[in-house]
Amino acid sequence: MDIKSIIRTVPDFPKRGIMFRDITTLLKNKDAFIYVVDRFYEHYKDKKIDKVVSVESRGFIFGSVLAYRLGAGFVPIRKPGKLPAEVARQEYQLEYGTDSMEIHKDAIKPGERVLVHDDLLATGGTVAAACKLIEHLRGDVVGICFLIELTSLNGRRAIPAKDIISLIEYDTD
Amino acid sequence: MDIKSIIRTVPDFPKRGIMFRDITTLLKNKDAFIYVVDRFYEHYKDKKIDKVVSVESRGFIFGSVLAYRLGAGFVPIRKPGKLPAEVARQEYQLEYGTDSMEIHKDAIKPGERVLVHDDLLATGGTVAAACKLIEHLRGDVVGICFLIELTSLNGRRAIPAKDIISLIEYDTD
Repeated sequence: MDIKSIIRTVPDFPKRGIMFRDITTLLKNKDAFIYVVDRFYEHYKDKKIDKVVSVESRGFIFGSVLAYRLGAGFVPIRKPGKLPAEVARQEYQLEYGTDSMEIHKDAIKPGERVLVHDDLLATGGTVAAACKLIEHLRGDVVGICFLIELTSLNGRRAIPAKDIISLIEYDTD
Repeated sequence: MDIKSIIRTVPDFPKRGIMFRDITTLLKNKDAFIYVVDRFYEHYKDKKIDKVVSVESRGFIFGSVLAYRLGAGFVPIRKPGKLPAEVARQEYQLEYGTDSMEIHKDAIKPGERVLVHDDLLATGGTVAAACKLIEHLRGDVVGICFLIELTSLNGRRAIPAKDIISLIEYDTD
């Protein structure tokens, strides 16, 4: 299935010069949705994944389905102040300034095998921060999967020594 | 399975006097996660659901799994400014002031059968606004499902004439 053709590109969103890759046209297409989940599932089905971790909020969409499909638990990483129990926090770089993200400290047990999912790999800052949080809890990041990778931004450099897959690539951002 | 016992209650979060029902302890438990999805699935499997609609961001978690399980498309409703193509917008009441939410105008076709999911039914304002957006696009809201219902807040009054289910009830907020 040519899922790349189902992604909608919106020029100049959220600001001039950005080609926004809109996944909602894929999400609403039930055949494409199932195809994506099954592609990820095939890659990770024998990896004994204990937890799938995703970053708020688009990452929750395929992350939770993957958890269900793999028979794993689901762990959300959220913006500060959203998780009510004891958290670990990690800062990360944005284009201008910094932001931070939090995970519940009891979300992952030491030694658990973790799959990280986000919808988009751009510079890799978000997912690198997520990996730091998981490793802080002594989880083992077994793999990282993205729906879309903007290859020209070299995001894989931010997350070396990880098993990374993406299903759709764009060589211009 | 006694899933209510797996929900964590955090007193005084996000502010004094609120008993916060934390679903992350359920999400990370793979057996409870599967149990919840399968309970929803059993209720809707013969309802010919075309689209599952959920509100950002906790609603995305079970909403997307339900879409996958039911063989339906998934449609996110998001905070203003997040969706890149043409949107419909709906305001709704918060405890103090108002907020608004958006849906892509091409997300639902007239006559499509829609299941709405959110994690929590409190006053019902959020999901009532979601139903208005779906009906504005001439979708047919066939059912609404929640993981948790705070029954003392009478949220069902905000969404009359809908087929509503919840899996866990609390009679105090």
